[in-house]
Amino acid sequence: MTVEYQEQLQATDDRSLRRRITSRRDVLKVLSAGLSLPAAGALLSACGNSVPVAAGSVTGQASPSAATYAHATASPAPSAAAGDWQAMDRMHEEGVKAFPAKTQGLGGQPLQYRLDNGVKVFELTCKVVQWEVTPGTFVEAWTYNGTMPGPEIRVTEGDRVRVIVKNELPESTAVHWHGLIVPNDQDGVPFITQPPIRPGETYTYEFTVKNSGSHMYHSHHNSTKQVGKGLLGAFIVEPKDRSKEPQVDIDYVMILNDQTGGFTLNGKGFPATQPIKAKLGQKVRLRYMNEGLLIHPMHLHGLPQLVIARDGWPLPQPYMCDTVNVAPGERWDVIVECSEVGVWAFHCHILSHAESDHGMFGMVTALIVEA
Amino acid sequence: MTVEYQEQLQATDDRSLRRRITSRRDVLKVLSAGLSLPAAGALLSACGNSVPVAAGSVTGQASPSAATYAHATASPAPSAAAGDWQAMDRMHEEGVKAFPAKTQGLGGQPLQYRLDNGVKVFELTCKVVQWEVTPGTFVEAWTYNGTMPGPEIRVTEGDRVRVIVKNELPESTAVHWHGLIVPNDQDGVPFITQPPIRPGETYTYEFTVKNSGSHMYHSHHNSTKQVGKGLLGAFIVEPKDRSKEPQVDIDYVMILNDQTGGFTLNGKGFPATQPIKAKLGQKVRLRYMNEGLLIHPMHLHGLPQLVIARDGWPLPQPYMCDTVNVAPGERWDVIVECSEVGVWAFHCHILSHAESDHGMFGMVTALIVEA
Amino acid sequence: MTVEYQEQLQATDDRSLRRRITSRRDVLKVLSAGLSLPAAGALLSACGNSVPVAAGSVTGQASPSAATYAHATASPAPSAAAGDWQAMDRMHEEGVKAFPAKTQGLGGQPLQYRLDNGVKVFELTCKVVQWEVTPGTFVEAWTYNGTMPGPEIRVTEGDRVRVIVKNELPESTAVHWHGLIVPNDQDGVPFITQPPIRPGETYTYEFTVKNSGSHMYHSHHNSTKQVGKGLLGAFIVEPKDRSKEPQVDIDYVMILNDQTGGFTLNGKGFPATQPIKAKLGQKVRLRYMNEGLLIHPMHLHGLPQLVIARDGWPLPQPYMCDTVNVAPGERWDVIVECSEVGVWAFHCHILSHAESDHGMFGMVTALIVEA
Repeated sequence: MTVEYQEQLQATDDRSLRRRITSRRDVLKVLSAGLSLPAAGALLSACGNSVPVAAGSVTGQASPSAATYAHATASPAPSAAAGDWQAMDRMHEEGVKAFPAKTQGLGGQPLQYRLDNGVKVFELTCKVVQWEVTPGTFVEAWTYNGTMPGPEIRVTEGDRVRVIVKNELPESTAVHWHGLIVPNDQDGVPFITQPPIRPGETYTYEFTVKNSGSHMYHSHHNSTKQVGKGLLGAFIVEPKDRSKEPQVDIDYVMILNDQTGGFTLNGKGFPATQPIKAKLGQKVRLRYMNEGLLIHPMHLHGLPQLVIARDGWPLPQPYMCDTVNVAPGERWDVIVECSEVGVWAFHCHILSHAESDHGMFGMVTALIVEA
Repeated sequence: MTVEYQEQLQATDDRSLRRRITSRRDVLKVLSAGLSLPAAGALLSACGNSVPVAAGSVTGQASPSAATYAHATASPAPSAAAGDWQAMDRMHEEGVKAFPAKTQGLGGQPLQYRLDNGVKVFELTCKVVQWEVTPGTFVEAWTYNGTMPGPEIRVTEGDRVRVIVKNELPESTAVHWHGLIVPNDQDGVPFITQPPIRPGETYTYEFTVKNSGSHMYHSHHNSTKQVGKGLLGAFIVEPKDRSKEPQVDIDYVMILNDQTGGFTLNGKGFPATQPIKAKLGQKVRLRYMNEGLLIHPMHLHGLPQLVIARDGWPLPQPYMCDTVNVAPGERWDVIVECSEVGVWAFHCHILSHAESDHGMFGMVTALIVEA
Repeated sequence: MTVEYQEQLQATDDRSLRRRITSRRDVLKVLSAGLSLPAAGALLSACGNSVPVAAGSVTGQASPSAATYAHATASPAPSAAAGDWQAMDRMHEEGVKAFPAKTQGLGGQPLQYRLDNGVKVFELTCKVVQWEVTPGTFVEAWTYNGTMPGPEIRVTEGDRVRVIVKNELPESTAVHWHGLIVPNDQDGVPFITQPPIRPGETYTYEFTVKNSGSHMYHSHHNSTKQVGKGLLGAFIVEPKDRSKEPQVDIDYVMILNDQTGGFTLNGKGFPATQPIKAKLGQKVRLRYMNEGLLIHPMHLHGLPQLVIARDGWPLPQPYMCDTVNVAPGERWDVIVECSEVGVWAFHCHILSHAESDHGMFGMVTALIVEA
């Protein structure tokens, strides 16, 4: 890393940093740790990994030095004429600097339940909202409780669960518990296992949760459109016997989608995706879920992934990889050991889902490992 | 399930039922068992699974009760104006009620052979037919023996097999034994291992079957078009030593395709696909085969799938899942234990291959488990 | 195989053969072995596999015999009018006869390094070239050192490696070491772990290689375009302890791509792809790497594949198959035992990536097993 580049990074003003970090507390935490996003060098020196002088040195013959570059960054952004690589670089940099960009709405938050005679009662309201996918870009989303993805339902194997679904959509709907073993009449398929839940109606599902693992709930009526528009969420079932569960520090659900809002991770496109933050040495469990129409091979830089479960079922023989191909309807659980400090890019490796000549977008986030 | 909805189901007239069940015997069997397709409730009560009153109750505030709905169903179908959810629901219901719809032609039926001095002799005639994919929708198919998929060839490991192929197509062809280990000159690749079989010609393949498992046969000449138009079939090889085979009650081949006829399972689109019928406690072996150009992650509701073989080779370590992603050219064998009674939806989870705002179509069928 | 067809094959003149074999030495070797590409029959008889007379016989009722056909081949190629199957067959045959067609440039060749105080120093220059994908078809490729794919970097686990990257492209770039565990600031992501390498600049990466296996290096700046245009290559890491490595006779890297140049294997489309040549009984290790935007299920005829590693990590439980689905970013290592003599077609089984009505193209090659 050049001296000029590090100077430029140190000159990053507080305001631009505030834009890309979701809260002031985060900003302070990050600053005090010496971490600014494009400054893995600082991170590394903090944790004792010295980088040889030879590495990362830039020698320019065609004149534009890193200093010039830093200057150019401060100028008004020029139009991105074809072949104008400097304008292209600025757009790329602005995207990274904006990460994680603040947007309204956060999907996948835990759904609270109330206990009714031993039954965990959840409530879902299907409704249309304007959803902010990236800063300033709003799309019409069809949601459970106003967010895309819907809230996370998390229960324990053996629980009796009741889900009360209110339909405020302009068309009928139904909820399928994707991956759960339920009695047939709770399966959520209109005209096969139940009548559709029509606009204005409320429908109640109730079942005992028989199998653990990473599952989903989503619409099973006019589903290409309804799931595509956001009627989807995670349904996590903790096993009754947790002794066989891997011990992890962070349990992170990542729902992949490719319809409404474009290529999204948990309903947001880069730079509005949320980074996963961990400490050196921690273990992260990632639960990939694909609710889209395309495969998404998720590639995490630097840290290999141990694949431990498929569709909620533990694999008898876990295996290592760095790119997990997730097909529509599939769930894959992996364990990542945070053995290297840094800001690790994490993205779909169908590159057209992750980067254009305007910079990174869509299915891109980062796993940030702090010392 | 509401009382009104059950009444509506009971009111289903015999004629509409006849339309969606392939034979009168099926109708009688289904009626005597108390099974009407959208009536899993009846099924469940028959097998002692009581459903709590709280579950499945509909409370409508916006008026359209299930009874009104039943009435509307009897009316002439209105045009499906944008936003007309009632018309949309009717189309969805009509699709389900029509399942399994009767069409001409049934692919994948066992191909009889004659014995010639210990050799099993099969005959395939390549010919163009009009193939009914869904009721009233005919497409030009290029077929083996007039059906799409072609007939199923099933032999035993170690068998000597002769296949006499007559080409009545308007262009040359050749047959590749996909997955079988054969001598190179029986491999079916024009200009590499044989001359093409030209229009009007007859060509004879002969080989000893060396490896067991779920394989395929299909055209290997102008194959994007010829396989796409239907020149494909299952080639199943039973192992000589059956002691290692899983004991199953039903052995079902499901060929996925996405060219001629659109998204099809065994050459038919929903509602003309055939359901798989089993009894509670039975084991079903499914043999997925993809002859299309796209992946198809096949999701079975309610009953998990134990994956036991890939491309005809037993997996050293079977594993569980609920969505089996089948890529072009792949075969996957799974075992399903029919541990829950009901009509279990079974479909490709690329939702646009299975449902539109006109209802379910394409790669949708059901596994019906009776008590 | 008919007598006529064999006669036709024997009549293949030396000139056409020369066109499809890359060197005169190859020609001589092949001729002396009795191998002409479409002549597996000759091969088989050479190795003692007698083919029964009944197999492969053609009986034509509609007149065009193989002899007529051979005659037609010698005539000037007619225009390929719709329905003109003879013209179509000729185009198919010409494609096969041209294989392996000679083109300028061969990617994936070993990159030499120099030792600097124990560090292996590699040099990569990013530059634009005209790349010949099939005979006479040139595309603008963005390359490392002038070839697509770039040269193969092959080192040993534990090596200290320095890679000096010179950017002669019209835009900035950066190199990501896909699959390698490197310090964060060597990870190659502009604005996150380093500044972009701007036109005219030279940038130096240096790291100790921590994990073995089949990995890749490629651009991580404007990557959809830059990787698509050819900025990619194999980065193979031999394990320090080779006792656990499978013993093989041939180690072959196959990079799949689907952007610049269309569907390519190691930067070439059929018939300019290179066959893999082996002797009967040899073991081949194939290392698939997908640098494209689409999946490619690679199907090898005749010889099953034992899957041994994923993304460079040995699988704890290898398994057999015949079609390996490789998703973007993934690497899969397999072992093929060359137990059957012949010219075995080897292609992507998304048939539209491999064959049109003009013949085979794109992702097609062959594994040639000689006696």
